[in-house]
Amino acid sequence: MKYPKIILNLIECFKQLPGIGEKTAERLALATLDMSQEQIDLFSSSLKDLKKKIKRCVNCNNLSDDDLCIICKDKSRNSKVLCVVEEPKNIILFEKLNIFDGYYHVLGGLISPIDGKNPEDINISSLINRVKKDKIEEIILALKPSVEGETTSLYISKILEDTKIKITKIAYGIPIGAEIDYVDSLTLEMALENRMDISTNRNS
Amino acid sequence: MKYPKIILNLIECFKQLPGIGEKTAERLALATLDMSQEQIDLFSSSLKDLKKKIKRCVNCNNLSDDDLCIICKDKSRNSKVLCVVEEPKNIILFEKLNIFDGYYHVLGGLISPIDGKNPEDINISSLINRVKKDKIEEIILALKPSVEGETTSLYISKILEDTKIKITKIAYGIPIGAEIDYVDSLTLEMALENRMDISTNRNS
Repeated sequence: MKYPKIILNLIECFKQLPGIGEKTAERLALATLDMSQEQIDLFSSSLKDLKKKIKRCVNCNNLSDDDLCIICKDKSRNSKVLCVVEEPKNIILFEKLNIFDGYYHVLGGLISPIDGKNPEDINISSLINRVKKDKIEEIILALKPSVEGETTSLYISKILEDTKIKITKIAYGIPIGAEIDYVDSLTLEMALENRMDISTNRNS
Repeated sequence: MKYPKIILNLIECFKQLPGIGEKTAERLALATLDMSQEQIDLFSSSLKDLKKKIKRCVNCNNLSDDDLCIICKDKSRNSKVLCVVEEPKNIILFEKLNIFDGYYHVLGGLISPIDGKNPEDINISSLINRVKKDKIEEIILALKPSVEGETTSLYISKILEDTKIKITKIAYGIPIGAEIDYVDSLTLEMALENRMDISTNRNS
């Protein structure tokens, strides 16, 4: 005995999603049965048109339903600063927190030779072109603190070495509110390495 | 800045599913973008036809794409025993383990006066009719060990009190492989209450 074909199909579809195993897929597929017809129709039609309606912004590679994304269309932002992120969802986070008013550039991945991801596989050349064309003054690298993130940051800074563009990297260290005892050793090492001189004011 | 409308719709849809919060919904919606068009089409069409194609078996209330479900159609099973379960997915579990060859009856819920669920809100009357009509000899109550499960089991056994049908309940106790130290007190209490006499053989 198995579920009816259509439910088996649904379970298979849910299983394609990251972090969804057999049991969760089954639970989710059965739960859709309890949704209202209206809700299911919206779910179904959203999926159907997804790939047709969603493009990548030609300028920054962000998700968009137009050639230019909503951020690149906004002329009121600071055009001198570019924040480089791995994925579109990183942009959403920055925007939610309302802590950055420049533009973004989405790499769509990180350099990882082990996984066969080379610099030409992610949007680095478009970043370089953009930096030169748009007369950017500062690039903020906001990539994750991993070997891949570090490699990518290093690669970008090397390529732009000869320009006068200021290149910064977001700080890695102990998260606010954490107990030092419970922080992992790599984070602590990073925090030590990236320590800040706070004696400047005292000495001046 | 927010996601394009169609992605926001998808996030909302995923959020309707149990156990899926804002962040997971966002992650799942973005992950669908990486699915193949073929997979997305299957996902979308499965959802679209779901409610149209899935009915409840007129006999046992199991999920089915026909009037009678695949189990009720199977005439080779033991027609004397009926296993009463809460949900269709419980049937799948029994069938996967291949440990029961009778028929099932899906209640579609448990009695829970606090939540406004009374005996008439679940499929108890159809169970009683079936028990009489099909000349069932044993009913196995396989409901979860909770107040609601116990109440429902008690209610069903009370109603069938005057019949000669054997009514059994699956055993609740310590799961195989568990350390007694780590079992919760209610389970241990159940295990003690439902203790089995193993001295019979010795005395006879």
